Amino acid sequence: MSGNSFGTLYCVTSFGESHGPAYGGVVDGCPPGLALKNEDLQKELDRRKPGTSRHVTQRRETDAVEILSGVYEGRTTGTAIGFLIRNEDPRSKDYGAIAEKFRPGHADYTYFQKYGIRDARGGGRASARETVIRVAAGAIAKKWLHERYGVVVRGYLAQLGPIRIPFKDWDVVNQNAFFSPNPERLEELEAFMDKLRESGDSVGARVNVVAQKVPVGWGEPVYGRLDADIAAAMMSINAVKGVEIGAGFAAIEQKGSEHGDEMTPQGFLGDNNGGVLGGISTGQDVTVSIALKPTSSIRLPRRSITTRGEPATVETTGRHDPCVGIRATPIAEAMLACVLMDHALRHRAQCGDVAPPLKLG
Amino acid sequence: MSGNSFGTLYCVTSFGESHGPAYGGVVDGCPPGLALKNEDLQKELDRRKPGTSRHVTQRRETDAVEILSGVYEGRTTGTAIGFLIRNEDPRSKDYGAIAEKFRPGHADYTYFQKYGIRDARGGGRASARETVIRVAAGAIAKKWLHERYGVVVRGYLAQLGPIRIPFKDWDVVNQNAFFSPNPERLEELEAFMDKLRESGDSVGARVNVVAQKVPVGWGEPVYGRLDADIAAAMMSINAVKGVEIGAGFAAIEQKGSEHGDEMTPQGFLGDNNGGVLGGISTGQDVTVSIALKPTSSIRLPRRSITTRGEPATVETTGRHDPCVGIRATPIAEAMLACVLMDHALRHRAQCGDVAPPLKLG
Amino acid sequence: MSGNSFGTLYCVTSFGESHGPAYGGVVDGCPPGLALKNEDLQKELDRRKPGTSRHVTQRRETDAVEILSGVYEGRTTGTAIGFLIRNEDPRSKDYGAIAEKFRPGHADYTYFQKYGIRDARGGGRASARETVIRVAAGAIAKKWLHERYGVVVRGYLAQLGPIRIPFKDWDVVNQNAFFSPNPERLEELEAFMDKLRESGDSVGARVNVVAQKVPVGWGEPVYGRLDADIAAAMMSINAVKGVEIGAGFAAIEQKGSEHGDEMTPQGFLGDNNGGVLGGISTGQDVTVSIALKPTSSIRLPRRSITTRGEPATVETTGRHDPCVGIRATPIAEAMLACVLMDHALRHRAQCGDVAPPLKLG
Amino acid sequence: MSGNSFGTLYCVTSFGESHGPAYGGVVDGCPPGLALKNEDLQKELDRRKPGTSRHVTQRRETDAVEILSGVYEGRTTGTAIGFLIRNEDPRSKDYGAIAEKFRPGHADYTYFQKYGIRDARGGGRASARETVIRVAAGAIAKKWLHERYGVVVRGYLAQLGPIRIPFKDWDVVNQNAFFSPNPERLEELEAFMDKLRESGDSVGARVNVVAQKVPVGWGEPVYGRLDADIAAAMMSINAVKGVEIGAGFAAIEQKGSEHGDEMTPQGFLGDNNGGVLGGISTGQDVTVSIALKPTSSIRLPRRSITTRGEPATVETTGRHDPCVGIRATPIAEAMLACVLMDHALRHRAQCGDVAPPLKLG
Repeated sequence: MSGNSFGTLYCVTSFGESHGPAYGGVVDGCPPGLALKNEDLQKELDRRKPGTSRHVTQRRETDAVEILSGVYEGRTTGTAIGFLIRNEDPRSKDYGAIAEKFRPGHADYTYFQKYGIRDARGGGRASARETVIRVAAGAIAKKWLHERYGVVVRGYLAQLGPIRIPFKDWDVVNQNAFFSPNPERLEELEAFMDKLRESGDSVGARVNVVAQKVPVGWGEPVYGRLDADIAAAMMSINAVKGVEIGAGFAAIEQKGSEHGDEMTPQGFLGDNNGGVLGGISTGQDVTVSIALKPTSSIRLPRRSITTRGEPATVETTGRHDPCVGIRATPIAEAMLACVLMDHALRHRAQCGDVAPPLKLG
Repeated sequence: MSGNSFGTLYCVTSFGESHGPAYGGVVDGCPPGLALKNEDLQKELDRRKPGTSRHVTQRRETDAVEILSGVYEGRTTGTAIGFLIRNEDPRSKDYGAIAEKFRPGHADYTYFQKYGIRDARGGGRASARETVIRVAAGAIAKKWLHERYGVVVRGYLAQLGPIRIPFKDWDVVNQNAFFSPNPERLEELEAFMDKLRESGDSVGARVNVVAQKVPVGWGEPVYGRLDADIAAAMMSINAVKGVEIGAGFAAIEQKGSEHGDEMTPQGFLGDNNGGVLGGISTGQDVTVSIALKPTSSIRLPRRSITTRGEPATVETTGRHDPCVGIRATPIAEAMLACVLMDHALRHRAQCGDVAPPLKLG
Repeated sequence: MSGNSFGTLYCVTSFGESHGPAYGGVVDGCPPGLALKNEDLQKELDRRKPGTSRHVTQRRETDAVEILSGVYEGRTTGTAIGFLIRNEDPRSKDYGAIAEKFRPGHADYTYFQKYGIRDARGGGRASARETVIRVAAGAIAKKWLHERYGVVVRGYLAQLGPIRIPFKDWDVVNQNAFFSPNPERLEELEAFMDKLRESGDSVGARVNVVAQKVPVGWGEPVYGRLDADIAAAMMSINAVKGVEIGAGFAAIEQKGSEHGDEMTPQGFLGDNNGGVLGGISTGQDVTVSIALKPTSSIRLPRRSITTRGEPATVETTGRHDPCVGIRATPIAEAMLACVLMDHALRHRAQCGDVAPPLKLG
Repeated sequence: MSGNSFGTLYCVTSFGESHGPAYGGVVDGCPPGLALKNEDLQKELDRRKPGTSRHVTQRRETDAVEILSGVYEGRTTGTAIGFLIRNEDPRSKDYGAIAEKFRPGHADYTYFQKYGIRDARGGGRASARETVIRVAAGAIAKKWLHERYGVVVRGYLAQLGPIRIPFKDWDVVNQNAFFSPNPERLEELEAFMDKLRESGDSVGARVNVVAQKVPVGWGEPVYGRLDADIAAAMMSINAVKGVEIGAGFAAIEQKGSEHGDEMTPQGFLGDNNGGVLGGISTGQDVTVSIALKPTSSIRLPRRSITTRGEPATVETTGRHDPCVGIRATPIAEAMLACVLMDHALRHRAQCGDVAPPLKLG
């Protein structure tokens, strides 16, 4: 498996750079017969789109997606689904000044050293704009998972810098610029962001993602665990530095008598396991939490070096999200959906003849 | 890639169950010419072995490993390295009582529901005893990484339940039963564990792993990121519920001006990135931290259900680690070593002709 | 690995249908620094292009290729190379009449039964027009193999129906419509094809492909043999029904004393092995021969059934090659080049530190 | 995927050398609940076993197989099935004389040049004794395919050197030392082999394999074709130099009106396609034919070189099959069964919800 593809049976391949002509994706392995049109992908892409509020980058992209294959008369045919998203507002000149410097926190230095060459315009392949492909592929996975199994994959902003946002209501999430699940914190978030933007600095965030109605039995021991694949998928998102399943790092201080979710004939009495035991889904909600680092591109001057190894100062004046975590919610949802769909297919490949012996609840 | 294998070019395949006749592993893709003998694997297996102190399970296993192929006259030949570790002290009777109950926190329920059948003796395939294969495979990776690149992969116990253990000294780690890097905390740890064992309960832990002298350039964008593969490898270890790279979850509250590691001609001025930027190694230490949940098998009575769905109580009286995290250090090191070796090979496949243009420091 | 991708490290992914808007490809794993422009791919695509003589399909396609990513300032960057080839002359009306019938020899029936749905326009995904992606990907592989190792991959038409074409001269191959390596047979071939076209029937062909200057040591035992991967790559080309390496089927009647190529300090004394022993290249020419079945679409009436299972007659009046084998030479070359490049990368991943101990010749 | 594994979902991994302590295999992805015991594997291994007649090698191996994991109380659990076959009669001294020479037709030279080191005892990893693993893995696949779908995979010797053996009767195949499907040719075969053995030479062979009752729909376009995977699996068998599906190389001289199998509501009227169209099974018999080269190890003196590049003469006096093709039938069956099982699982992963719309016959 090459680095620009992921998934075993629901396999996503991605190409494109921030300032090239287009991003493209290929989704292979989608079951046939799924009703699918551009709008199904567009809907999710619009949630991730830049320029929708003053709190995110002002780069103007419609992110209009065109499905090029794999769909015939409105239904998937079972063959590879190719799609394209043209770049419309690259403004490469923004990057001229920094083409020969390594921006701190970015992949500039590592790409240069690994490949001996790099596309410096807007981060090239390392740009988070690549996540359009993930979101489009995730839209297909979400649709299939929901139609076939009733699975619902949703996420929300759980923390913005120091501000923790207690979950309140799914319905609120898509009605504000932050994917906040709590309408009471919006003013606080807006004030914080306005001040942050003014300061020229950036901040990290936490995003939680939940998959509901996942059937019991998805995931493969020992290395192909559902949670291992989720961890990889999440950690592969730009800026992510940490992943938790269920209780996550809180499990360190828990006692076994507290952490181990008890069971009754009606089901589990807790969800410390995050919906996964032994790498296999339990039938409970799959709960994932990720940490996103603060945006690396900030206006404040930073020490760095040039491509010739000389000292330099970097001040990034391009258009950037002061908190990349804000737009990460649809991306994290997409990655979780793709992993779940992959495992749904893998599970029925091996265990298609098994009916789970027990029915709880 | 099937669920019992991992790695693209340094590929590890594992089989075996806790109470079956043996565990076996196959390491494929190891470069030829590496000096290798049983003892190289045994040395690491002995670090993970049960029964070495009163704080871990009293199951007696020599974990004696036998290399069956891939080595000729003391050197690897480039062909598949197969090895076997016989189970010696299974005591299946310990499990007779719980064969028809699901132990809370274990994979009993999910295996049963996924496969419609399960080997209930000691957790069968879900037992953490499978990690002998990882440790053996990791021993080969560690040896090659060190001989070829000088890479050193080491870990330590960073937290035991509520007790945080500040790093002090690598030399101490292998001189105590806890893999503690700090001699001053040993008494506290021993006292805590004695009391815990008495209580019949268990506790979680944090293990940190560090790879030093990793060259710049290992890792593949976009999905094949070094940190994504590390995250999967770590989350695939039994009981792991969270993974951090570099600053990890602390990055949420950091400002960009604090998190983004500045550079000078001498190198990076910080390691918030954990040695990875854009999925590619920076040349700094690769730093990983994992959360392990408390042991699920405890003496205290727990509510659960039988394989027929009836209420039941589970009290586990078998031999178990009161804190699985204690023996996790060599396992986490092994997984990190395997991932690094895989990426070392992947890197030279694609970029074997590239000399990193810059030399820092 | 999904069905629309191939290769482990030089990984090609393909999408598109005969009468959809476009075909697209993604080449992942290409080393950085290779000079590459649209023309490099176009040159090979033009060799395969329809409409270049009266002996092939009259469908008019420029097959103009556009590289969309992975190349910066004329050099590959090491990231995924995406490219697009728009369909220009689909004429879907040609297929209206047969949308509800299964054309004998085609994949119509199997796609319909497998997926429950099919894109019937021009064979949809099963159309041999998909081979544009292979040819484009092969062009990159050819270029890299030649620049890096001096490898030359070439093919020719070795038999057209009953007419065997003895190899004479590489230079002739690209100077005639048949990829014939023998100028003396051209008249015979033209006459045969004119008569065949008139008859409304079609015929099979044999194409030979040779890779010269392949270094010793490429290929992996046991399942990942170089010849095994070549066999898969060739058999995956539309219409191919047989693959031979070296002596191929002639080996059945050979004695060991005849087949086993002897060696001297100057090198091998024969090439019955086809340049591969034990799945690993010997340093000799790699020689491959493939059998292509006659074009399935013919004007003559054929018995078949409809999508409702009723008897039907199929007479194909669209534009078709009377011998698909004629245009297969660049396709077979491309597949061989891709496999070789994949193994070149795999070899240096594992054996990058090995210098072949012996130098023959 | 590393070189010692094959299959996407029914994944076989192999290790071991001809004169090492043991061969081992891991089968991953087998559905749970299949009744399986050592005898199921042994039965097939005994068909391939050496020493069963004077026409094959006299090496004495019981090839006794021990399943080490993945089976509990007589049924597969869905976890990795590991098994071991100890070597009992290696007689390494037979090879002492040739450790420093390259045997013509063998992989000695290529392994040495690729890895810089080789296990010279009996061909080491390149020995055809490795096929015990394939046969064992194929036994599991055969059993599952038959119990789940009624699929029957069988093969026979179709040609021995110059002697073509017309198919007559499946029942005869396992009742003679040649896997000949024709009792009338046995005397001729015996006489031929006796004379051949006396001459110190060897000869090639053709083996045909057929899978009956394969459902329509298995196989994936475009690169993941069923026939492409069959071709790779067959070409990966030691000594195989050619693979045909259906009409194979005879298709070259066929007209389209002859080759393209017509259809009626009762089914196909021919099987030139070999049971595969567009890479997907048609529901007819899958027919495969392979060419095996003559045994490379012969008593007659052969020119070669030493590991230092000096001229040498090789006369192989060890125990060898004068025609490796004779024992190849169970191996080819096993490989076909493994590929079919892999595609059965892959098919139901993607198309588990599709009922083939048409029912012929």
